[in-house]
Amino acid sequence: MNEIIESLLSRRSVRVFEERAIPAAEKEAILLAAVNAPTAGNQQLYTILDVTDPELKARLAESCDHQPFIAKAPLVLIFCADCQKWYDAFLSGGCAPRLPGAGDLLLAVDDSLIAAQNAVTAAWSLGVGSCYIGDVMERCEEHRALLGLPGYVFPAAMVVFGYPTAGQKARKKPERCAMERIVQENRYRRMGADELREMLAPKSGADGYEAWLAAFCGRKYNSAFSREMTRSVEAYLAAFRREEP
Amino acid sequence: MNEIIESLLSRRSVRVFEERAIPAAEKEAILLAAVNAPTAGNQQLYTILDVTDPELKARLAESCDHQPFIAKAPLVLIFCADCQKWYDAFLSGGCAPRLPGAGDLLLAVDDSLIAAQNAVTAAWSLGVGSCYIGDVMERCEEHRALLGLPGYVFPAAMVVFGYPTAGQKARKKPERCAMERIVQENRYRRMGADELREMLAPKSGADGYEAWLAAFCGRKYNSAFSREMTRSVEAYLAAFRREEP
Repeated sequence: MNEIIESLLSRRSVRVFEERAIPAAEKEAILLAAVNAPTAGNQQLYTILDVTDPELKARLAESCDHQPFIAKAPLVLIFCADCQKWYDAFLSGGCAPRLPGAGDLLLAVDDSLIAAQNAVTAAWSLGVGSCYIGDVMERCEEHRALLGLPGYVFPAAMVVFGYPTAGQKARKKPERCAMERIVQENRYRRMGADELREMLAPKSGADGYEAWLAAFCGRKYNSAFSREMTRSVEAYLAAFRREEP
Repeated sequence: MNEIIESLLSRRSVRVFEERAIPAAEKEAILLAAVNAPTAGNQQLYTILDVTDPELKARLAESCDHQPFIAKAPLVLIFCADCQKWYDAFLSGGCAPRLPGAGDLLLAVDDSLIAAQNAVTAAWSLGVGSCYIGDVMERCEEHRALLGLPGYVFPAAMVVFGYPTAGQKARKKPERCAMERIVQENRYRRMGADELREMLAPKSGADGYEAWLAAFCGRKYNSAFSREMTRSVEAYLAAFRREEP
């Protein structure tokens, strides 16, 4: 096991940050790692929004499921899947590009998260913790207006960064599911009730599996923010379904 | 600049591999890095298909835009966004989950690519090269059948791994666009014709910008595989739009 793999294994989310800025050189290294990530056809199908405005951070802390720690993060990056810039370049360069579609969006989301994870890994190597905020996919109309996103740009992930407090450093990384349930050979094997229970039971607490599962389903899946995510993503997708610009 | 960031910056795609297997311990480390990546609510919203069957590799090499090097890769992983397993667990555990929607899919795609990029970074640290194959998103019906994917599972990315040949090691990493065009502050700034040209012109060759752009648009964007990607992604999305299971 080398230092790089050890770092990947040890990384865990950080949600409480020291009140300490990230020096310019460290921020530069984090961004450099992001833009040097693998990217489809070297197209860099993303734009990274570096949110420095405290008021904008505060708005996002509210709109992204009321998580005040977002406003306190010294570095907030939004990785936007960007199908706008190449389309605009093709148009203004005299090509006749087709309209962007859902395939372009998904390829750009791939690119965005690959870049984001490089930023997260680089940050961790510098002692800077991070947390992904998927909620930035919610509230399409509000976020479009707040961030000035044109039709073919989708905020695929937000990542907040900062130095972990002592309490955060002491936190244990949550256990992952057993490897043989996550990695399957050749073809997808749909798990039955017993295997699903075996996979997830280690997550349940003193109240037992059924009670834990019901609470988890209510909190993470049947919840308002989760339903809103699908409504909002459909609203973004609508732009990728138009037959005319 | 530390060793980890240097490794992230130096990584480039490898498409020609030595005829040499990846030892079990290295493969284990690569997979361990993947499943220890950040994941929404510790849900690991993905299943990794480890394609070991040479015949299946050969089929994928054909179906993924005819790229024979896929069949020659000693390690082929497909990172599937998996909205099936938790839905099945909720159902069989007596909860009343809503049907999966497009928001769940996108969150799972985020998770999948975060895990994939950890695998890529771990591999590179072990001298193992890799290449993302976005084409696995194409040909929904064929890939569903080939990989046995149920309705709520989407192949978000394939990554092929192997030891780079001397020729591949000597290849230069393609230049990225200038940082200030990729990273913007606070709000999205749509670039005009001049700025787009300035950003992309360094990519063009002896024939000049317009000729290069037109050829690139034809090859990467107006091409058959690119149109097929959108058709196929829409076919996957259809499952996430059903009102009844």
